[in-house]
Amino acid sequence: MTAAILSERDIQFMLYELFDAEGLTARPRYADHSVDTFNAAINTAQHIASKYFVPIRKKVDEQQPTFDGEKISMIPEIKIAVDAAIQAGFVSSTANYEFGGMQLPLLVSAAANAYLCAAGSTTMGYLALTSANASLIEHHGTAEQVEKWVKPMRSGRFAGTMAMTESSAGSGLADLLTSAVPADDGSYRISGSKIFISGGDHDLNENIVHLVLARIKGAPAGVKGISLFIVPKILVNEDGSLGERNDVALAGLFHKMGGRGQTSTVLNFGENGGAVGYLLGEANRGLSYMFHMMNEARVMVGTIAACTALTGYQYSLDYARERFQGRLPSNNDPLSAPVSIIEHADVRRMLLAQKAYSEGAFALCLLGAQLADDRHTALSEDERAKADTLLDFLTPIIKSWPSEYGPKSNSLAIQVLGGHGYINEHPVEMFYRDNRLNPIHEGTTGIQSLDLLARKLPMNGQTGYLFCLAEIQKDIDAAMSTNLSGPAMQLSEAVSVLKSTTEFLLQAMMTKPIDLVLANSVSYLDMFGHVVIAWLWLRQGLVAQAAMAAKLHPSDMDFYQGKLQAMTYFMNFELPLIDVWSMRLTELDATFYDMKNNWF
Amino acid sequence: MTAAILSERDIQFMLYELFDAEGLTARPRYADHSVDTFNAAINTAQHIASKYFVPIRKKVDEQQPTFDGEKISMIPEIKIAVDAAIQAGFVSSTANYEFGGMQLPLLVSAAANAYLCAAGSTTMGYLALTSANASLIEHHGTAEQVEKWVKPMRSGRFAGTMAMTESSAGSGLADLLTSAVPADDGSYRISGSKIFISGGDHDLNENIVHLVLARIKGAPAGVKGISLFIVPKILVNEDGSLGERNDVALAGLFHKMGGRGQTSTVLNFGENGGAVGYLLGEANRGLSYMFHMMNEARVMVGTIAACTALTGYQYSLDYARERFQGRLPSNNDPLSAPVSIIEHADVRRMLLAQKAYSEGAFALCLLGAQLADDRHTALSEDERAKADTLLDFLTPIIKSWPSEYGPKSNSLAIQVLGGHGYINEHPVEMFYRDNRLNPIHEGTTGIQSLDLLARKLPMNGQTGYLFCLAEIQKDIDAAMSTNLSGPAMQLSEAVSVLKSTTEFLLQAMMTKPIDLVLANSVSYLDMFGHVVIAWLWLRQGLVAQAAMAAKLHPSDMDFYQGKLQAMTYFMNFELPLIDVWSMRLTELDATFYDMKNNWF
Repeated sequence: MTAAILSERDIQFMLYELFDAEGLTARPRYADHSVDTFNAAINTAQHIASKYFVPIRKKVDEQQPTFDGEKISMIPEIKIAVDAAIQAGFVSSTANYEFGGMQLPLLVSAAANAYLCAAGSTTMGYLALTSANASLIEHHGTAEQVEKWVKPMRSGRFAGTMAMTESSAGSGLADLLTSAVPADDGSYRISGSKIFISGGDHDLNENIVHLVLARIKGAPAGVKGISLFIVPKILVNEDGSLGERNDVALAGLFHKMGGRGQTSTVLNFGENGGAVGYLLGEANRGLSYMFHMMNEARVMVGTIAACTALTGYQYSLDYARERFQGRLPSNNDPLSAPVSIIEHADVRRMLLAQKAYSEGAFALCLLGAQLADDRHTALSEDERAKADTLLDFLTPIIKSWPSEYGPKSNSLAIQVLGGHGYINEHPVEMFYRDNRLNPIHEGTTGIQSLDLLARKLPMNGQTGYLFCLAEIQKDIDAAMSTNLSGPAMQLSEAVSVLKSTTEFLLQAMMTKPIDLVLANSVSYLDMFGHVVIAWLWLRQGLVAQAAMAAKLHPSDMDFYQGKLQAMTYFMNFELPLIDVWSMRLTELDATFYDMKNNWF
Repeated sequence: MTAAILSERDIQFMLYELFDAEGLTARPRYADHSVDTFNAAINTAQHIASKYFVPIRKKVDEQQPTFDGEKISMIPEIKIAVDAAIQAGFVSSTANYEFGGMQLPLLVSAAANAYLCAAGSTTMGYLALTSANASLIEHHGTAEQVEKWVKPMRSGRFAGTMAMTESSAGSGLADLLTSAVPADDGSYRISGSKIFISGGDHDLNENIVHLVLARIKGAPAGVKGISLFIVPKILVNEDGSLGERNDVALAGLFHKMGGRGQTSTVLNFGENGGAVGYLLGEANRGLSYMFHMMNEARVMVGTIAACTALTGYQYSLDYARERFQGRLPSNNDPLSAPVSIIEHADVRRMLLAQKAYSEGAFALCLLGAQLADDRHTALSEDERAKADTLLDFLTPIIKSWPSEYGPKSNSLAIQVLGGHGYINEHPVEMFYRDNRLNPIHEGTTGIQSLDLLARKLPMNGQTGYLFCLAEIQKDIDAAMSTNLSGPAMQLSEAVSVLKSTTEFLLQAMMTKPIDLVLANSVSYLDMFGHVVIAWLWLRQGLVAQAAMAAKLHPSDMDFYQGKLQAMTYFMNFELPLIDVWSMRLTELDATFYDMKNNWF
């Protein structure tokens, strides 16, 4: 087996043909960069992924970290891999030069990170969380806090976590109980217990910076009384050297179905009087700051889901080409040789669906990365504001669609391998287990659907929604005058359905019981997600079509044909599903709403 | 947590209200039985499941059997559990009294076994395979073979396996290479290697009876040259005592994602000159005999998938009732108490979908069991023949639908538990892993779809298909004059779509390239499966409706309301999907057919 981690050709297509990575070099922030430096970063990531991540992924999965009541042990290969990625700059690839970053565009960084995610999402998880934590403090912390905490995270000395969930407050953050009491020196003493803290303890770095949501004594109830604190594992002296151990104790590890390389911990704060914590920004505004990190984490979750799907697709594709078995239905001659299983139409179905899901999902994540770039670096204020709004609107879809369809894609990878897909000689069963976390963490699919329908859609006079439709319409218009008018028409009809459904729901949210209107919110998320992915497939089709017509890359004709075929799959087999969702939504179907506890 | 393994109320509903288990006692074979003896068997199974299976399921999953090159070790609890089930008669519950069986109807046995499957499908796997193996020899073996092999299997002394797959012949049985050479004493010497043999070696029983597909020297190529042999692990003397070790060697164990209690083995036959094997039935007819066992195994796979879904549903239902978190969208008061998560409509969606999938799938499996009874014990020859035809027709659906929707159901159970569903403190992640095998073994979903469309549908002038439609129509007609005319109409329209699609395909199979017509066979299986499950939901709705109208069980009103609501879910959210599948089929959509290897 010589399966690629990712398709190199597809990464190039995504960066330079579907999105305009090269155009970013015209922006002041990226002026030092060129296609060469972009590709160098991607090649480095690919090299580290191949050399350090892939060879250990089975061992990482089988020998998960253990906790003896005192400390965590994990196989040393994880530290070697993490260090290699840190040394190559992948904990701070997008950060400013002044923090030791590479100042790469997020779009390019996402493509480079894709190799690391695909090769070892849990190993990569340590870096990604650290980067997101540093980014939050960078934006909301004081200059002193940036100096003290961000710099060591960007250099890889410290790691970072996000400590939100409590055992009685998972999706319901309003009810969290961890408390903060002001101390004389201006810091706080934090007490409480947090669960499911990824990377909550380990020895991969000198120190760990926890970002902890807690309630200052006397703060209002609910989400309006939550503040955010920097709580280090080890206190840090004025000169940046490590001081005493803070009052943060590891209380246990969870044993997860997948993602087993990354510790998921129970952390107890303040068992001995209170952990020292430093307020970040203003009191009681913690949740809004945390959303800075959480939005980044949500895009990250979508990306990990997409990358796990991409690599499972590559693996099963390679297997299907090399495995010979059976004959076509038209061939009844038992003396003829068995064919490569890719010759069976149903195997091609499973591969094409994987291609459509995973490359569609990845395109969506890269769109998110591009928007995240644009909102800070686009040349006009207007473009920046628009990108910001659009990214905000699309975040629940970027988080959920890859998370829902990534595991489906990995399930098909297993099915292509048959019995061999179910055993640990091949990694596809691990991908399937790993990917199942993604619809859960950083806000479940249900939470995302409420965010989209009840919050993001009506927000600011539906600006995000309208921007999104306008972007889709541009590509439909462009396609109408080409050979792709057929799929453009399919998408156009789907957009009409989406529009009328949306108008109905906006009206209903103002006039009908809100619990009833929101009861089918997941159907709305499903529908919107499918329209967005169909749009990105139409766009990929347009690029492929234009390239083929211009005969710019004659050797790539096969590649572009594959793009067109995956687009056709999505338009024919997936997009029509939106009609069922729309029907239920516009009827205010009350099946779930009416169902009673006692009827189950 | 006090989650039920299965809903007792639902088992009673299925047996005595949806199906007529009581009516079976009028048949001579079951004349000694009564509702009391049926319920006693079910209670015994429930007791064993609770006492021996549930307490060990986590340990069974975590400490899978190991092989040191000499022998297999497994935790002793498995043998205790298997012995308890054997002693209670569950390896031979349907067998004749003369073989030590209980002579239970398959319908009742399926309901009893459901407890064992739900509580420990892999532990139960040892018994189920033994029973299916014994059943095959019973039907196709000589009196002497029955005496020698069946009796000890029925009493639990011996276990049985099915040895088909080879490393280069999984789904493509035509290419299997294991050979058989006649010996002077009328037996054969078997040589070859088999993989994925469930229960291929262990010390749970005194001996293991392998049923091995092999090719007699000089036999025709392909499936027409395959014979079936009885190949024991240990040779058996004339008097039934154990003799020498046969030339059958365990070569290795596979490490599976789930189902970890049941060994999956590589067996080498004839490394030292040839394993002694005894021809079963006639030479070169082995595959047709194996289908006796395989058809039983296919129904068994569907049943295991359904039971794993049922128990995951019960577990997540219990969790949803006991877990308090969040508030309804209509409630903005952070001082109000959090609600039980079952109050959230989206959690009810996930529970109701599980109910619809798992109880629909289980009803289908019980229908299969009833037909398997009827084909041997129905009072008229006509009814027996009809049941035989209908079961044969439905087998690919009974195998696949629960196998495809069972894992989806278990995925929803994980989602209900959120982060807690992803860790091994709760069994739902194990159910999800266990269930993923079912769309693979005993013929993948792709293989089943070809069996349905290319083989079962046109067979004997479409008799099976026509019987099936007629049965569905009966319930539609019955429902039309009740309050359920709405769902009856939904089903009726779906049947029309199914009919026109089927007629189109029957025509196309005769006039168009067969590889093209069969390229979307999975869509046909999907469509037919959904219609059949919708039918079984309409039937459950009819029973519930009638019971409510008659106020026969006033305390059960809630239960019946739940049945009606699950029916509504299936009719509104699932059944409409068939339109997409039908469209693709009747257009002979060539997306998969046209896709080229090089385009991926």
